[in-house]
Amino acid sequence: MSDALALAGVSLIGGRAGDRHGETFRAYQPADGRAMDPYFYSASDAELDEAATSAATTAPVLAASSGADRAGLLRAMADGMDRATETLVERAHLETALPRARLTGEVARTSNQLRLFADVAAEGSWVMARIDAADPQRTPPKPDIRSMLRPLGPVAVFGASNFPLAFSVAGGDTASALAAGNPVIVKAHPAHPGTSEIAGRVLNRAIAECGFPAATFSLLYDASTRIGAALVRHPLIRAVGFTGSFKGGHTLMGLAASRDEPIPVFAEMGSVNPVFILPRALLERGESLAAGLHASFTLGGGQFCTKPGMVFLDTAETAFLTKLRALTAEAPGFAMLSPGIAGAYERGLRERVGLRTTEGQRAETGFAAQAALLETDYSAFAGHPALHEELFGPSTLLVTGTDRERMLAAARSLRGHLTATILGTDDDLREYAELISILETKVGRVIFNGFPTGVEVTHAMVHGGPYPATSDGRSTSVGSQAILRFARPVCYQNLPQHALPAELRDDNPRKILRLWNGRWQSN
Amino acid sequence: MSDALALAGVSLIGGRAGDRHGETFRAYQPADGRAMDPYFYSASDAELDEAATSAATTAPVLAASSGADRAGLLRAMADGMDRATETLVERAHLETALPRARLTGEVARTSNQLRLFADVAAEGSWVMARIDAADPQRTPPKPDIRSMLRPLGPVAVFGASNFPLAFSVAGGDTASALAAGNPVIVKAHPAHPGTSEIAGRVLNRAIAECGFPAATFSLLYDASTRIGAALVRHPLIRAVGFTGSFKGGHTLMGLAASRDEPIPVFAEMGSVNPVFILPRALLERGESLAAGLHASFTLGGGQFCTKPGMVFLDTAETAFLTKLRALTAEAPGFAMLSPGIAGAYERGLRERVGLRTTEGQRAETGFAAQAALLETDYSAFAGHPALHEELFGPSTLLVTGTDRERMLAAARSLRGHLTATILGTDDDLREYAELISILETKVGRVIFNGFPTGVEVTHAMVHGGPYPATSDGRSTSVGSQAILRFARPVCYQNLPQHALPAELRDDNPRKILRLWNGRWQSN
Repeated sequence: MSDALALAGVSLIGGRAGDRHGETFRAYQPADGRAMDPYFYSASDAELDEAATSAATTAPVLAASSGADRAGLLRAMADGMDRATETLVERAHLETALPRARLTGEVARTSNQLRLFADVAAEGSWVMARIDAADPQRTPPKPDIRSMLRPLGPVAVFGASNFPLAFSVAGGDTASALAAGNPVIVKAHPAHPGTSEIAGRVLNRAIAECGFPAATFSLLYDASTRIGAALVRHPLIRAVGFTGSFKGGHTLMGLAASRDEPIPVFAEMGSVNPVFILPRALLERGESLAAGLHASFTLGGGQFCTKPGMVFLDTAETAFLTKLRALTAEAPGFAMLSPGIAGAYERGLRERVGLRTTEGQRAETGFAAQAALLETDYSAFAGHPALHEELFGPSTLLVTGTDRERMLAAARSLRGHLTATILGTDDDLREYAELISILETKVGRVIFNGFPTGVEVTHAMVHGGPYPATSDGRSTSVGSQAILRFARPVCYQNLPQHALPAELRDDNPRKILRLWNGRWQSN
Repeated sequence: MSDALALAGVSLIGGRAGDRHGETFRAYQPADGRAMDPYFYSASDAELDEAATSAATTAPVLAASSGADRAGLLRAMADGMDRATETLVERAHLETALPRARLTGEVARTSNQLRLFADVAAEGSWVMARIDAADPQRTPPKPDIRSMLRPLGPVAVFGASNFPLAFSVAGGDTASALAAGNPVIVKAHPAHPGTSEIAGRVLNRAIAECGFPAATFSLLYDASTRIGAALVRHPLIRAVGFTGSFKGGHTLMGLAASRDEPIPVFAEMGSVNPVFILPRALLERGESLAAGLHASFTLGGGQFCTKPGMVFLDTAETAFLTKLRALTAEAPGFAMLSPGIAGAYERGLRERVGLRTTEGQRAETGFAAQAALLETDYSAFAGHPALHEELFGPSTLLVTGTDRERMLAAARSLRGHLTATILGTDDDLREYAELISILETKVGRVIFNGFPTGVEVTHAMVHGGPYPATSDGRSTSVGSQAILRFARPVCYQNLPQHALPAELRDDNPRKILRLWNGRWQSN
């Protein structure tokens, strides 16, 4: 624990330690509500400006770096995270009360993400190179045009409280932005500042080892929301990645849109993740569905943006329901990530008074919460828009009496979500085929006979969805496609070979897939 | 001319003719300023709502259509435009005063664009299908995840005055949105309503011939900006394509961002298109550069968003300059597209008083304008931000005394533009390599030894650029990559084969390129 004890509590400004002048804050232990050392010092405006200015100066260096070099950097970061596992888990456990086993898995997820983006950068085809050859015989002569994706410039990243590693300092936004060739400035989440510092130092060490400019990465602390807002408003920042609440994401969207030069914001803001249980499956395997649903909505204290928060089914009294009530009543208490989350959950339950409610046990101390199963019927649900909103925590809402027609109506009335889940037999699915065509317009991921918690980090994953699930339904924040957020196409007309990026030269030195005169080919 | 004489002057609401109740307006002939028949009736709010509602109802049908079927539709539209060439050109010539030969070429460009997107839709790989196979042996079991791009839903399109065909009713926005599987609602540009009606009827005929739903396309007239604004605010509209002024695009961005559910706006808003003339080229071929630049900035009366509007060079008195002044002084007068454009150009020239100015001839009647060559030196330019702004019309601004250091400073100080052009020898380019790395962060297209007017419609073209050139620097409005604007990734987890889109089935019935377990392959 020497690293954790040595926490400096200051921002990391392009490799150098920040000053101890700003407002301070401390992390709290959710298990008992006590504050932890050390004090963390907010970055100053001058430090923010230094981070942004040096990042902008560094941007052309990163843009000119090869995918192989960036892959080396990302792999060194992954190795560093793995080596720091024990230190990261110990501090993150104190700061979040998430179980050590879960946090150990999350470090592995984080380093695997870094390695996935390393592979993507090294392979290089992600730039979607396109070459249209010249035709000097045409009237007028047709020029040579070549395009590829190029990095945007300095990216600001805001991590989430519920994934202190995989969606934080060294998480997917940072990994994908670096892989695309952008410098990154992370605003540390105030709920896990110590974990953030340890991860930030790991990244800095990898940057130094690999000979990348120190300004490739900065980490800023903020006791309030002042520095975060100033970061999004800073004229040298080119894009924003955010994972968190709707309120937070929406604020950043407004700040970015009101800049002299608006910039893209990729905010993942949460979701209720509707589940549709089709009749035959409900009849055939109600108890196993209840067990699966219960495990999913209480996992991590329900503090996942993919927690299944509303469930549509037709019959009211079934083995499914009996089992689900029993499991919920027996569920142990949870320690939530922050007093804010615990309080909002408690208020949300109180606001849903009048619904049939089954509650689990409650812890005695800390930021406590209990599992809750809420039940209503379709008519009441349809008439109360407040019931459609996310309740972050270990609860779900059953909407009974939802027959086929109402299920389709419920699907059509959905706003944007990250996921939608269909539980059914193959015959059910054929009968409800229309449900898929509706749901695919409402979410980023349609799941059949599974549960939405558990987001695979793969090439095909889409962790996104229409507003208000995200600020930009045309993107994903998980999986290798996340790199596409932080790049833009640029084309070069009639440039000589020596002046072209390697990816666009005739001899294809990077051996990447390219669209050459309209045909995809790798040579 | 029977078609043109038969103009009905009403909106086309999903194939049916709109009512004659709204406010009316007429087109004007730029050549003599006279109003033309017929009167066009603004769409009512009810008609707008009908167009949007029927488009939304049609969206799932289009989303489920095959790329081959959409290709058939786009090719029928292209054939229809070709057959209507004479009628289109005749009316467009009256409404815009653009030469018949240019307009004939523009019809061909428009039908070629429709065919390019037909090819893209038919070939099908544009959906970027990705498949990550399941691994049931893993702990926990790894699910099967498959993703592809899916259409957004009803798209609103606003055409431009300066391309009454290629960036209007049947233009690139419409073609790319349809190719991706979206219904389209076009707000007709008031400067060429008759041309719009003819094109709209061509599209409707193709839709009927190919058996697509009538609500695949609607065309709305508007005497003011009321219906256009209501269209962008309509809750069923999912995205906006726009080509026009910064003011217009910026207004639509604000409307879209302030909706309950913000939607993406792809607005191409213009550009000054800086040109950098490097020393050896200036010395070696000054006269030919002068001729090329003059032809480019006066082409079409300078009414192109890619008109080269500012030119940086080091020496003041050269053969280049003598030639350019002479060509400008001899240039014939131009009839501009609208009194608004002619007036703004006139005001812009007056505001730039005090610069050395060479003017061409001026037409006697209509919306007249004259070519103008403005000259300043670098210090004056750097100190006057107003000189950096677009002046739409047949003028360009020479910034002399721009040595290497100043050229790099000028490039660094640029806001977003559509293009940047470098004129130089190969040795020049090696010496100014840094210029490319700066310019590629400022524009969508970097041109070497060519001129920015003339935008090839190909796979690699990028007609875009950072704000304020466009609302979204991560997109292009010309070339086949434009289709990517109107789609979003969706992933399907553990869906059985029969419930998957054809593009994602194991047997790859569409024979498209797919990323299978991280490897791009076509089988």
